[in-house]
Amino acid sequence: MDLFEAIKKRHSYRGGFEDKPVPRAHLRQIVQAGLDAPSGCNAQTPRFVIVDDPALVRTLAGMHDRNKAMQQARAFIACIIDKEPPAVYQGMSFQIEDCAAAVENMLLAITALGYGSVWVDGWLRIDGRAEIIGNMLGLPAGKCLRVLLPIGLPCEEIKPPAKKPFDQRAWFNAWEQGQ
Amino acid sequence: MDLFEAIKKRHSYRGGFEDKPVPRAHLRQIVQAGLDAPSGCNAQTPRFVIVDDPALVRTLAGMHDRNKAMQQARAFIACIIDKEPPAVYQGMSFQIEDCAAAVENMLLAITALGYGSVWVDGWLRIDGRAEIIGNMLGLPAGKCLRVLLPIGLPCEEIKPPAKKPFDQRAWFNAWEQGQ
Repeated sequence: MDLFEAIKKRHSYRGGFEDKPVPRAHLRQIVQAGLDAPSGCNAQTPRFVIVDDPALVRTLAGMHDRNKAMQQARAFIACIIDKEPPAVYQGMSFQIEDCAAAVENMLLAITALGYGSVWVDGWLRIDGRAEIIGNMLGLPAGKCLRVLLPIGLPCEEIKPPAKKPFDQRAWFNAWEQGQ
Repeated sequence: MDLFEAIKKRHSYRGGFEDKPVPRAHLRQIVQAGLDAPSGCNAQTPRFVIVDDPALVRTLAGMHDRNKAMQQARAFIACIIDKEPPAVYQGMSFQIEDCAAAVENMLLAITALGYGSVWVDGWLRIDGRAEIIGNMLGLPAGKCLRVLLPIGLPCEEIKPPAKKPFDQRAWFNAWEQGQ
């Protein structure tokens, strides 16, 4: 799929999924897109655990009470960062940015391959969910789950959200000035 | 350009640029890719100031003493966030992630259109550079410059950095286990 088409077609999907598995070749291709993302000082901070074991998928899926994409996911990608942000440049860490860039690459890859997903982040930070899932995945003490991507073949329409137009968010040469 | 080709070809570029302007149609297309990126709760937090005024471009370019892509940039995209992170979900803010996802979309668009760039972040946070440039761009008091993307047509080879292989960063179903 053309890059700009993938960017336009990528939308958060919270609907149901068809009862079809996601082949490992596709899961690897999606995660490779995440590995290819940029990272501050090329530190390549994010790590990924791909969940496709049916029992583990069912356990994760059962944790959400509302989001159908989570409840019916056929696979998950768990994005892992450090609990203590690693300084890579003048005392600064870029692991949040590294992880987000990798997630965006993976969401575009998911779109291009015909799957649907949604960036699950804040929900993990409530009621110790990130830690519970991190324990299921065998994360070592210094690592934590930051983002979870449920994946499957959408069986509902993927609807674009309302977005502000260009001239409300971007200008030439000065804030809120040139168009 | 195919999505996966753009992802593979995107590398940080710190070399020189040809003495050719970047047309506004391309700058708009690149920034639109950033606007199309996902954001936590669809809050669409990042804003963008596109710098292509020749005098302003020269001033920004003159601030860096080493990075040729900054020194010879023909245009810049300044990515703006809030100084006080806005809570959008259960007291959490996702503006760093929103901005990073938008930057990654723009870097892919830059690659697909044949330009080069590099994600400039930490350098801005030293010696008050983000504030100095923010003032030049007329940012209001609550906003700050987070990321700067220099853009131009590369006149040197874009070399990929060394990257860890898949099995050192990604596993199936358990940390450092299945391949």
